[in-house]
Amino acid sequence: MTHSSPSTPCSGTLFFDVNETLLDMSGLNQAVAQRLGNRPERAEAWFTSVLHHSLVGTVTGSFHNFGDIAEAVLEMTAARYGITLPEEATPLAEIIAAMPAHPDVARGLTALQQQGYTLVALTNSSAALAEKQLSSAGLAPLFTRILSVEQVQVYKPDLRVYQWAMKEMGQSASACMMVAAHGWDVGGAKCAGMKTAFVARRGQALYPLAPSPDRVVDDIVALAAEITPLC
Amino acid sequence: MTHSSPSTPCSGTLFFDVNETLLDMSGLNQAVAQRLGNRPERAEAWFTSVLHHSLVGTVTGSFHNFGDIAEAVLEMTAARYGITLPEEATPLAEIIAAMPAHPDVARGLTALQQQGYTLVALTNSSAALAEKQLSSAGLAPLFTRILSVEQVQVYKPDLRVYQWAMKEMGQSASACMMVAAHGWDVGGAKCAGMKTAFVARRGQALYPLAPSPDRVVDDIVALAAEITPLC
Repeated sequence: MTHSSPSTPCSGTLFFDVNETLLDMSGLNQAVAQRLGNRPERAEAWFTSVLHHSLVGTVTGSFHNFGDIAEAVLEMTAARYGITLPEEATPLAEIIAAMPAHPDVARGLTALQQQGYTLVALTNSSAALAEKQLSSAGLAPLFTRILSVEQVQVYKPDLRVYQWAMKEMGQSASACMMVAAHGWDVGGAKCAGMKTAFVARRGQALYPLAPSPDRVVDDIVALAAEITPLC
Repeated sequence: MTHSSPSTPCSGTLFFDVNETLLDMSGLNQAVAQRLGNRPERAEAWFTSVLHHSLVGTVTGSFHNFGDIAEAVLEMTAARYGITLPEEATPLAEIIAAMPAHPDVARGLTALQQQGYTLVALTNSSAALAEKQLSSAGLAPLFTRILSVEQVQVYKPDLRVYQWAMKEMGQSASACMMVAAHGWDVGGAKCAGMKTAFVARRGQALYPLAPSPDRVVDDIVALAAEITPLC
């Protein structure tokens, strides 16, 4: 972390989503699919339902920790399929904490840091979980800050998350970019006034009703190659 | 629709979710599964994603019509699976408009009406779509009002929907019950102060992190058999 005087040229602040954008969720998906009768597509329905229920809490004024939502939705999904979950399985939070980075991430983030960008993690994971995740994946030292929605008690893409994150970093929207592999995340950030980059990870697609992102890239190395300073 | 004088005894106002709670979605699910490579579980992931994206709009201040969200999420889901959608398929809104009632519904609603309850539909479908749906299923004459979230431009379970619906009917929360086959819907209504009944339709399960419903019933006939006046 370096101190920048007002006269230092600034490249801008990049906010990174963590799950799927930086970290590879395939091991988690396999573990969930195995618990739901060895059906890979059930893991996808489970994760979509986790996202849905994070917002259910947001709009009903009842915030729950992301790991607790993940477990509760797994329980509900198992009940829907008439499946009894194994009693002694590894807690999902433990699997989520140990997900590896996608192969491009360390190199891409390092390049962006060298280009003068301030790197911030902005995640739906709890603060404690996010710290564990980025440390375990070897990425924590690259980030100036790790910001969790836990601080505002509403989930992305609620606009209050992005507004709080920008304020926390002391930056105006024009100097900020949200980088994520989910259309709803870059869509929300765009509605909050940020610039946005969609990382087209395998199996991800943009949401047609959200505003278009400023950039679409294959991975973080590609982002580093084509980004231009925001300020 | 009858006029009640203040001295008429009141049984209470029942708000009914429409999709899945009253209407059988299996034909819709089959049509969606067929378009997504004949994989039944993809239809479930699609509907969960429709629900997620209805709330994505809600928390980003961008309301879209439910039918438009359904089509947009189908397009996105197809892109995720690398599937090209047929160009001349029946629009989803047309299929959604023609879904049949579950076999218990007409009899259950009629019994509830005879017991003096005021029946109101409260749905995430647009007003025009909901009118079509309930007319097509032969249920429209049983309802005093058909209320759509379109009026408040946020989706269930945002608490503002339930608060608006109760105000619209001139009722206090203690005289109101929300009836739905989705844990997140009865959970939201409960947070808004209503009584709630969960209809345990096939493949539906309660969400462990939501407040418990007041009643869990197998269908609408069972609800009519065991409900007691709310006021």
